[in-house]
Formats: sequence, structure tokens, C-alpha cells
Amino acid sequence: MIKTVVWGENVHEQTNKTVAEIYPNGMHGCIAESLNNDPEIQATTATLQEPEHGLSEARLADTDVLIWWGHAAHGDVSDEVAERVVRHVWSGMGLLLLHSAHFAKVFKLLMGTACNLTWREAGERERLWVTSRNHPIVHGLPDYFELENEEMYGEPFSVPEPLETVLISWFQGGEVFRSGLTYKRGAGNVFYFRPGHETYPTYHDANVQRVLKNAVHWAHNSAARVQQVTDAPNRPVEQSIEPLIARGAKLHEAGEDGFK
Amino acid sequence: MIKTVVWGENVHEQTNKTVAEIYPNGMHGCIAESLNNDPEIQATTATLQEPEHGLSEARLADTDVLIWWGHAAHGDVSDEVAERVVRHVWSGMGLLLLHSAHFAKVFKLLMGTACNLTWREAGERERLWVTSRNHPIVHGLPDYFELENEEMYGEPFSVPEPLETVLISWFQGGEVFRSGLTYKRGAGNVFYFRPGHETYPTYHDANVQRVLKNAVHWAHNSAARVQQVTDAPNRPVEQSIEPLIARGAKLHEAGEDGFK
Amino acid sequence: MIKTVVWGENVHEQTNKTVAEIYPNGMHGCIAESLNNDPEIQATTATLQEPEHGLSEARLADTDVLIWWGHAAHGDVSDEVAERVVRHVWSGMGLLLLHSAHFAKVFKLLMGTACNLTWREAGERERLWVTSRNHPIVHGLPDYFELENEEMYGEPFSVPEPLETVLISWFQGGEVFRSGLTYKRGAGNVFYFRPGHETYPTYHDANVQRVLKNAVHWAHNSAARVQQVTDAPNRPVEQSIEPLIARGAKLHEAGEDGFK
Amino acid sequence: MIKTVVWGENVHEQTNKTVAEIYPNGMHGCIAESLNNDPEIQATTATLQEPEHGLSEARLADTDVLIWWGHAAHGDVSDEVAERVVRHVWSGMGLLLLHSAHFAKVFKLLMGTACNLTWREAGERERLWVTSRNHPIVHGLPDYFELENEEMYGEPFSVPEPLETVLISWFQGGEVFRSGLTYKRGAGNVFYFRPGHETYPTYHDANVQRVLKNAVHWAHNSAARVQQVTDAPNRPVEQSIEPLIARGAKLHEAGEDGFK
Repeated sequence: MIKTVVWGENVHEQTNKTVAEIYPNGMHGCIAESLNNDPEIQATTATLQEPEHGLSEARLADTDVLIWWGHAAHGDVSDEVAERVVRHVWSGMGLLLLHSAHFAKVFKLLMGTACNLTWREAGERERLWVTSRNHPIVHGLPDYFELENEEMYGEPFSVPEPLETVLISWFQGGEVFRSGLTYKRGAGNVFYFRPGHETYPTYHDANVQRVLKNAVHWAHNSAARVQQVTDAPNRPVEQSIEPLIARGAKLHEAGEDGFK
Repeated sequence: MIKTVVWGENVHEQTNKTVAEIYPNGMHGCIAESLNNDPEIQATTATLQEPEHGLSEARLADTDVLIWWGHAAHGDVSDEVAERVVRHVWSGMGLLLLHSAHFAKVFKLLMGTACNLTWREAGERERLWVTSRNHPIVHGLPDYFELENEEMYGEPFSVPEPLETVLISWFQGGEVFRSGLTYKRGAGNVFYFRPGHETYPTYHDANVQRVLKNAVHWAHNSAARVQQVTDAPNRPVEQSIEPLIARGAKLHEAGEDGFK
Repeated sequence: MIKTVVWGENVHEQTNKTVAEIYPNGMHGCIAESLNNDPEIQATTATLQEPEHGLSEARLADTDVLIWWGHAAHGDVSDEVAERVVRHVWSGMGLLLLHSAHFAKVFKLLMGTACNLTWREAGERERLWVTSRNHPIVHGLPDYFELENEEMYGEPFSVPEPLETVLISWFQGGEVFRSGLTYKRGAGNVFYFRPGHETYPTYHDANVQRVLKNAVHWAHNSAARVQQVTDAPNRPVEQSIEPLIARGAKLHEAGEDGFK
Repeated sequence: MIKTVVWGENVHEQTNKTVAEIYPNGMHGCIAESLNNDPEIQATTATLQEPEHGLSEARLADTDVLIWWGHAAHGDVSDEVAERVVRHVWSGMGLLLLHSAHFAKVFKLLMGTACNLTWREAGERERLWVTSRNHPIVHGLPDYFELENEEMYGEPFSVPEPLETVLISWFQGGEVFRSGLTYKRGAGNVFYFRPGHETYPTYHDANVQRVLKNAVHWAHNSAARVQQVTDAPNRPVEQSIEPLIARGAKLHEAGEDGFK
């Protein structure tokens, strides 16, 4: 079982009638329900409003893949929880970032770039093209699929060059966007997936659900988490692998920690 | 002229007799002096102790390439200045990170990883192998060069997969390390270069100086800086490139800013 | 079950006493036997001397992952079979290339580079360092492992920048080498793994066997093979996805094939 | 001066009236003329019909950057010349591949993939978006530019993941395409640039000309060519860098060449 937590900001579901009607159980609820149709995935949800945003140390330690959707309240996510998520990614937890999560603290921390783009909310047609055939994330998908109504995101999208560009979107209004991008940060697999504006029924779409299921499998790292993931251990001269005699001036006394 | 600023933490030069003897003008001073032998480079220095660590908005705006050496005092660099440096990298300033700068705030912010490694201070032999022949950063270098006394850094080095691995080190005690790594963050070219422990005369070495000169040229982006580098501009439907009629429910009023 | 074929050149096993003693069933036999300990892998062998080198169209179509070891007889592999293997990789078959297969026709065809390196046959110590912790290919391995006797391969190794550098070797004589490199060519996952000189018992080593098992799992693409993998289909204007009226001069008559 | 050779297949210019009218001096002539407006570029031409296709060993040795346009006659390029070009790329010559050169022998040899795509000749609008701001290849360009009439190329485009994706095209008929891709093969910089169907005046476009000029500068490697670019030199035990005593069984006699 791949233990998956779908994190939702859960703001517009509470404040916007359109969003509430499309997603009566929240966007996170809709996504989790769809994932649970996969017998190998066990999906639960967490939201901004819960203590520690539902992402305690214990819960993250027991999570294989975290899915993140946020938009209006990126600033309300505590730095402590954002940094905790990042640390768990480094140690091997998978992370999927959806749509407006391009500006989530966790994504910006992991990318090291501005993560900005251009946008337009006009319900236009989006067509997602597969650029890496048979990539595990697009298994079972045709060469392209369409979302009749979506928000536009346009290039330039300021992110690091990915490991692989898996999907590129065509927009009716004339823009393109790299919509499926894979990264690795420490031992953690990271996937950014563009679609999912809250006023459209995107997460009810069968192809979108397929991408998410595939991506959960892809992001899952079955190895045990890396421990002491930020440590910089000293391997002293008397424990060197090859025989070694220390030479030259030293800054550190024996057994002393390095600087951080 | 490539305007280059060599930033030095300038702590051990003041507190450690060995370091002071090897680098009477500071490590930053030694590096800047060497770079100034290149008629196309104009190198100056900045240090932690200066107001704003010598890296004011105005100075960074006038800097083509910044070189960063820090070790004992990473925590004393203000978050404000670190974030300012990062923003200038995004807009096109080149950045070279030396040795223990693997733990500098600016590097960790740009990488999005823990940037940790193993280490040993034993003055052992390091041999740097070129893995990307004729890369601009290794122009004029043989297939390998040696530093008779260096601190060991060992893999795993927790950084994102680079654009290119340019140099890999062999250490006498049995370790290896990816010692020359290129990245791009926004419009900025970033290069991590491993050697440079302060108790050894590494920055007096001709091959090391050659790498640094080459890297300054490589990192220099002659295009004008990107403006509004963190903006996410709205391209409204009435200004769409292709004719478009808005459809569906909207979250944003016309002209409203996006969420950040 | 992952259907795996271990291809062996099978020359030195027949002509060199040392090799025959270490690998009485051939290197391919030793590797296949080890893989068959994994209940999810079904490994068989094929050799140069069989008709079509044991790699008929039908057999490759039924192979999930092909492993390739060759050294003395690269030139005896027919171009037809080499190109057939390459085409199956493009359509989704995984391919692992071992040691001296860096000069195999199939590897050179897939890389597009010279694939050369430096070498020394002195039975020296090799230590392989993991550079991408928890990568599926190194699951269960420590941060490094050693082979007491191996042939040296040294950088520069003329291959394209990989998707990920997973292992780097340290050699007793002073060299380093990127020993575990991942690539994707079409829909096929490709892994180059350095160790395996025929006069040493490398494929009896538990860590090496672990890497090979892991790599078979990693390279296996469970999606159906891509069909017509070299086709460049015309999507004529009357079948365009968005409404389109043809304009301008035309080179091709309707329904005509493109140039190849 | 960057010595640049523009290679043109020069078939449709001779046989198709439309093409001849748009490019009275050939497409190669048009491109070379535009490049020669740059005082740092010295561009000449070569064509299929010349002896050795105009690409003798001596000429390639004296060429910094080669530009390649071919379409109808890929098969008429001799294997010998194609392999010669590839070898010069490995040793440091830059190579730009234009439009239908995606199926040129030289491109397929360097990529190791099928290089196929979908296409439509309908004179539709193409809009090229910059995905890597301030990349040297797009210096001076706006975030996008348009070609009112172009042939469509659509994803999936079967090429290896590039070093950087610099441009992505939007097509009126609904497709997208990665239109500017950088690679490195050996010491040679390689750039694929999509536009340039022969029945439209693409190479008269100012933005296209700007990309080509920028790309020539980017591809130019000022270092001396790598010699013996396919050699795999033996570094014998008595010349090892670190002291070494040979152990174990040997396959090769001292001084013997390796297998190829």
C-alpha cells in the first residue's frame, strides 16, 4: 500500500459557491476518493485548518507520497511545517504539486527559483501533450488529452530544468506551458502537474485522475527513509578507508563538529 | 569588462595564524588579485563585516558575477542579504560557490536540498578529473590536476542533478566527490567548485586560478537583467494573443492580482 | 515476471582458462542465475554464436529487459541485430550495458558519442560510491562498496550527460569514473554499469548482483511497447484538432508521405 | 571570427518554383548572408552536390560551427561524410540543425533516437515561446515571436532529454513542439531549431535570424579541437599516477591495444 496524503488548502471550497458545488468534499476529498480506487493506494486528506496543518512529524514519517494543492493562503502555511515537508522529501517522501502550488512555500523551497509564470482565468481549452512516451506518469494516456475549461498558465515558467519534461500544454489563447515536470530533491521524487483551477471540474476528469494515480506510483520510493538527512559527518583520519597520515595545519580539533 | 565581486567571510583570516599567513590579504583578496590578471575581468571584494555584508542592492545590480566563500559564519549572513543575492541570480547575475559555501544560505536557497556531504581535514592529496572535455570552465586544463593538501569532501553530496558534471575529485583516503557542477536558476548561471580549505594555499594554485577565471567568463550573462523577476503577470482575456471569449466561473475580478 | 535476457559475447569463456574457471557457465550464465533468485525476474541467456546472436525479432518483442556484455568481438555483432536492439529500446525494452559494452555497437548507437575512456588491467581496488541515495538502482546498498580486483576505467568518459549519475568509482591507481549512469532513449530505460572485467569474479559479488537486480526492476517499463516507433505521421489539415484552413504553397500532395 | 559553414541540401531550390523565388540564392545562401551581418561571424556555404558534399576533412577542421538544412535527400548524404561531421562535433565543432534536419543522418547519429514527430503542411501560425529567459540563444528576443506561415511539427518528438529546453512552439492547429533544444556530444555543442519549411520565407524573418546568430555564438567552442577523439588509451601500471602493483590474471599483454 502506498500511503498517500492529499493536502488541501480548503479555503475556496468554504468561501466560493462555485467551488463548493464542484467539490462538495473539497478538492482534496475528490482527489483522495479517486486515488482510493487504486487497490495499491491508501489516500487520506489533510488541510490547512488542522493543527500543524494536519502534517505532524509523525504523520509525514508515515506518508509515502504527499499531494499539495494551495492557492489563496500560501502565506498561512507555517514556515515550520513547510520546512518539515521539505525535510521529509529529502529523506525519501514523494511530493506532487498541483496547479497553483507553483507558488507554495514547499515548492519554492525545493526549486530555488521564483516559480512565476503568466496566467489568465478565462475558462479556455487546454490540451496536454505527452512529450515522453511511456513515461510511467503517462501510462495508459493517449498522445494528448483536453480540458475544455481551464485557467491558462504561460511560459516563461521560472523553474530549474527538470529531469524530464513529461507534458506540455497548448492553450486556446495562444500560450504554451510545461505542465508535467519531474525532479529529484535528495531521495525524494517531485512532480509538478499544472491543471486544477478550482472553479472548473478538473479533478473529476478521468485523464487527470490517471496522471495522479500514475504519479503516486512513480513518486513512491520503497526504500527506507534516509536518516540524519542534513548531517555532514566527519570521517576522521584514523578511520579513513585507505591508510592515511594527516598532514598540514588543522582548523578542527579531533572529534569536533564541522561548521553549519 | 566582467564586473566581479569576490565575497569573503573573512573570519579565519583574522583569527587563525596559519590562514593569515597564507592569505595576508584574505582569501577574497587573493582570488580577486588573481582574477584581475585577466584583462576582461574587473574584480573587487566584499566581506561579511561590511554594512549589508558589502552587498547592497546597488552593488549587486552592478555586479556581473559574484564569488562566494564562507565557512564558520554562514549563520551570520542576514536572511535579507542572502535573499537579495538569490534574487539577483534569478535576474541574471552569475554566482560561483567555493568549497565550504556548500552550506552557505545562498547555495542552500538556490539548490533546495540539504547540500550535505562527508569530510575530513587531513591535508590529503586531491586529484580533480575533467569529465566534460573542452567545457568552457576547464579550457586550458589537462585531463587532471592535483592539490597536494586539501580537505576531503565525500559523496553522497546532496545536491540536485546538475546541468553538467565538469569535475570529479579523487581523494587519497578513498573518497570521490563531484567537484565542479553547473546549474541555472532563473537567468543566472551557478557553478559550485569544491577546493579551497583555508589552511592550505589552494587559491595560489595556477590550475585553481584558471578554473576560477574560466568560470567567471562562463557565468557571465551579457544580456540585460530580467526585470520584475518574481512577478506573475495576468494576461487578461481582452488582451489575449489569439481571439478568446471568456467562459466559466471566475475567481478573480478583472485586473485583480493573483495570489502569492 | 520481468522477462530478462542476458546477452553474452561468450568468447573469452571459451578461449581463456582464467575466465572459464571463474565463469564455467559463462558470464551470462552467472548473471542469469543470480537474477533468477529474484522471484519477479525470469532470466534467460543469449550469445553471439547463436543464429541472429539469439536476438530474433520475436525474442526481443518478448523481452522486458536486455543485459549486454561484450568485449573482444563487438565487430562481430551484425549491424542488423544491433539496429534491431536499438529499435526495441526505443519502443520500451530496458537495456543494461556492462563494463566493456561501453564500446558495443548498441551502446554507441544509443549514445551518439565516442564512448571512449582510459583503462588499465592491473587488478587494482575499485570503490563504488553512491551519488544518488535511495535511487531504485542502489536500494539496499551502503554508501560505498568495494571490488578488490578490477580493471580501471578512467575519465574523461565520452558519453552524453546522463539523466542521473548514480555511482562514481574511485580507483587505487588514482582515477575516477562515472560507473552508474541512467539514460532514456525513446520509451526505453538504459543503464550503464561499469564493473565486470572477465578475469575477476565481479559478477559473483553480492553488491554487484544487487545492483543488477535493482537495475532490471528500474529498467522495466510495464507499458505496452510503442508501435510504429520510427513513423512520422502526417496529421492532414482536414483532420486538424483545431479548425484550420490551409494557406501558402505546398510541397506535398495530400496523403503523400514525408521525406525520410 | 567564428568560421561558420551553412550546409544546404539545395534540392527544392532547384526543382520547386516557390522555393526558388523565396530563396534565389538558396536557403543556405540566405542564412549565410544574414549571419555575415554579424562582424564576428564569417559564414560560407556548402551543398550536397559538391564533392564530398563540400565537407572535406580539411574544411571541417577549419570550421567552428556547421549549420545543417536537409529534407528531401537525407539518404543521398554519404555515410562517410555524415560520420566525419559527427567526429568533428565530438572534437569540438558546433552544430546547428534546422527544421527537417531532425531526420538528417548527422542528427540521428548524434541523438541515438528515432527523431520522429507528427507534421502538417498547412501554412498555419506558429508562435515560439522562450522557456529559458536570457539563455544566450534567445538574447534580444521578446518572450514570444510568431511566424505567420509554417509547417506544423507536433509532439511527441522522439529525442533525448536536452540539456535545456529553450523554445516551445504553439501551433494554430492545436499542437505543441519543443523547438529549441540544446545538447552536448563530446566537446561539441549541438542545437536543434525547428522553424524553416522551404515554401515559406522563414529565414528572412528577423527573429529567426537573431536566433541563428545567437546560436552560432553559443555553439562556438574556442578551445582547440580534441585530438584522437575516439581513442581509449591504456595507462599501464608502471605509469600509474599512484603507486600500484599489478595483481590478478591479465587478458592483455603489456603494450597491447584494447578491443574496439
